[in-house]
Amino acid sequence: MNTGVLEAICRKRDGKALSPEQIAGFVRGVTDGSIPDYQLGAMLMAIYLKGMDQRETVDLTIEMARSGDMLNLDGVEGVKVDKHSTGGVGDTTTLILAPLAAACGAKVAKMSGRGLGHTGGTLDKLESIPGMSVSLSPEAFVRQVNRIGLAIVGQTGSLVPADKKLYALRDVTGTVGSLPLVVSSVLSKKIASGADVVVLDVKAGNGSVMPTLEGSMALARSMVEIGCRTGRRFCALVTDMDQPLGTHIGNALEVKEAISVLQGACEGPLKKVSLQLAARMLTGGGLARDVDDALVRLEAAIQNGASLQKLAEMIRCQGGDPRVTEDTDRLPGAKKILPFESPCAGYVASMDTMALGNGARLLGAGRIRQEDAIDPAVGLVMRVRLGDRVEKGQPLLDLHLGEHSDLAGCTRLLEGAFTITGEKPDPRPLIHSIVEGPKQ
Amino acid sequence: MNTGVLEAICRKRDGKALSPEQIAGFVRGVTDGSIPDYQLGAMLMAIYLKGMDQRETVDLTIEMARSGDMLNLDGVEGVKVDKHSTGGVGDTTTLILAPLAAACGAKVAKMSGRGLGHTGGTLDKLESIPGMSVSLSPEAFVRQVNRIGLAIVGQTGSLVPADKKLYALRDVTGTVGSLPLVVSSVLSKKIASGADVVVLDVKAGNGSVMPTLEGSMALARSMVEIGCRTGRRFCALVTDMDQPLGTHIGNALEVKEAISVLQGACEGPLKKVSLQLAARMLTGGGLARDVDDALVRLEAAIQNGASLQKLAEMIRCQGGDPRVTEDTDRLPGAKKILPFESPCAGYVASMDTMALGNGARLLGAGRIRQEDAIDPAVGLVMRVRLGDRVEKGQPLLDLHLGEHSDLAGCTRLLEGAFTITGEKPDPRPLIHSIVEGPKQ
Repeated sequence: MNTGVLEAICRKRDGKALSPEQIAGFVRGVTDGSIPDYQLGAMLMAIYLKGMDQRETVDLTIEMARSGDMLNLDGVEGVKVDKHSTGGVGDTTTLILAPLAAACGAKVAKMSGRGLGHTGGTLDKLESIPGMSVSLSPEAFVRQVNRIGLAIVGQTGSLVPADKKLYALRDVTGTVGSLPLVVSSVLSKKIASGADVVVLDVKAGNGSVMPTLEGSMALARSMVEIGCRTGRRFCALVTDMDQPLGTHIGNALEVKEAISVLQGACEGPLKKVSLQLAARMLTGGGLARDVDDALVRLEAAIQNGASLQKLAEMIRCQGGDPRVTEDTDRLPGAKKILPFESPCAGYVASMDTMALGNGARLLGAGRIRQEDAIDPAVGLVMRVRLGDRVEKGQPLLDLHLGEHSDLAGCTRLLEGAFTITGEKPDPRPLIHSIVEGPKQ
Repeated sequence: MNTGVLEAICRKRDGKALSPEQIAGFVRGVTDGSIPDYQLGAMLMAIYLKGMDQRETVDLTIEMARSGDMLNLDGVEGVKVDKHSTGGVGDTTTLILAPLAAACGAKVAKMSGRGLGHTGGTLDKLESIPGMSVSLSPEAFVRQVNRIGLAIVGQTGSLVPADKKLYALRDVTGTVGSLPLVVSSVLSKKIASGADVVVLDVKAGNGSVMPTLEGSMALARSMVEIGCRTGRRFCALVTDMDQPLGTHIGNALEVKEAISVLQGACEGPLKKVSLQLAARMLTGGGLARDVDDALVRLEAAIQNGASLQKLAEMIRCQGGDPRVTEDTDRLPGAKKILPFESPCAGYVASMDTMALGNGARLLGAGRIRQEDAIDPAVGLVMRVRLGDRVEKGQPLLDLHLGEHSDLAGCTRLLEGAFTITGEKPDPRPLIHSIVEGPKQ
């Protein structure tokens, strides 16, 4: 038994702030396994119920970042930029903004994740490209970023082992939604992976992990404040997830939509949010005068094909077939496409975005159990957005089916996912808020 | 992983009451070891911080009582009475009230504990009597109670295994002081050991485990309320522990003082509290009309020698030398006795009762580590009480020393344990409050 940890548990239980030494001792004990599970459970619950102040959260973040290897990007010339999303549906901004930012001079060294619950994951999407690998050694990763300005891979090396342990424990102790624990988990990984500038996309709405807009706003503010105190530049956009961001939900489907945006062939919310995020990467990295200047450069990088070219380069470097960027029919396609029709006429007043994400998951676009294989071809393609007028029998979306799709399960979810009303609903903002760090 | 437990943890975390099924599932999982430690830690902390209502605490108590064997006292004729003290210093009421109540017709089937921290334990005291055993099989225990109306033993059989686990975990997760956890721990053991009437002695003051009088009162009220809801009769006295209750602190020393009370040779607070507790055993068991009637009977049982006789009978039945009740010199005696003198003249304004208990412990009357042996002969004998006038150099107490006594350590503790002032302090009540259950 570690009496230092017991003292720390009692302090937090009584609502007092932990000292830097107590936080360092806790993270050390989590990492080396010397703190018994019952004390970890008690401490996580005490943190959940009593919170942590800014200083504590900064200390926790930095100690967690230091708990394992830190990726050394010193060898990369230029400004290293990164991005994190709290997770959404039809939300493939990384595949758009990463090549865009790289095409505009930023160095994008991005470690991404897999799909989790109803949300998609960039790694799963990239793997729908024939031949594509997302496993690079730390050295190969840095080399590629240096050479072409862009790499997107799975977490490499032994980064942030303390988070691996705590993340798993939070899930089974009812302490997932604790602000300081969420913030330190996300930020420690960003800091350990070495970027100078990190842009956060915090989702709000029924497809996000935060139950309320206020919760999403608080998370965004906290992440930016804490992040900036660690000495990196952070900013956050709070963006709407009351409906899927893009029209395509599913792995190859989302790659296709991202390519379509980079081809200049697709306008809409997905492009808009991607450009707003990418613009903050450029301004944060000193690569544009201001957001307007950045948006002009980014739009140019679409129109002159530079960003699509950059995506093709990355795919080639990581073993994939770059021709998909010219011909998306080379991506896996669904065996069968079925429309899902509106049961009545009216306006689309609400969508259960989580149900749409879970519906795509039942078709095979995500995992139910961790060991499940993903079908890259399947998913949903939205035909309407909130506020659209529909007639009875008009398709609300198309189902892209595969051999193992659970069509019945998906349909059941979809049947409860839409509210169609007689009155046109008020339009809602796409970007709820922009949280900037302190001016430097 | 047990998802039912996770749901229960989240419910308690959010301040909601657990259902009877959730509490039963939790206790079952604690007992059979199917709940992982991290979930136990998280649940204990959630209970500590969010509390439990009466219904939950009753359910928890009963489920814990049922988690192992329940002692069957149905074979014992008459009213079975029991007593529990939250622990004190110089607090040997059990050795007085148990033979007294038995002499007045109650059946005293008492399971006692060992010394814990600065407080003494009845089992350790009994074992200072030459030959005395406190280990009886459940059958022998019931047989002895039936035959002579009295047995005091260590916990027998597999009683309340859920408490064994939770008690140990509370100690290392900072959740010892949770009212529902304290209450269910104490009461579950009393219920499993089968008594009809339980009298609680809740200590208040600097020698008790509760930090404030209000805390002690709340604990007493909660224990009586919860206890009565389990279908047994409970009442509680809140008694003063701002100084040792008796004059003797130490194992053989306390047996000697108890015998002296039963011989009718010793008046004072120890006798008074013992009689008040025993009186509630008699009234609760219908063996006296009211407390005054009970007190008359109890005093008579001292004067006519019946209670001392009962103690001798018990000692004989449990293998001890009953002659100690006539000649206390047959008990182990100290090698050496030293006075501890007052550094100045004045009134005894306060005593650090916990320091006195720990001082006796350092002499060998209690354990520092669990495996330590106890020296039955050593301890302290108080020569003053709060409010007494002392002169400089007048003994405040005597140290009864043994071979392995840490005299220096004890003296250091004693030096800080007394406040001597110029003004006579206000007298304080011996019994702060009496908490009765609902009339039946």
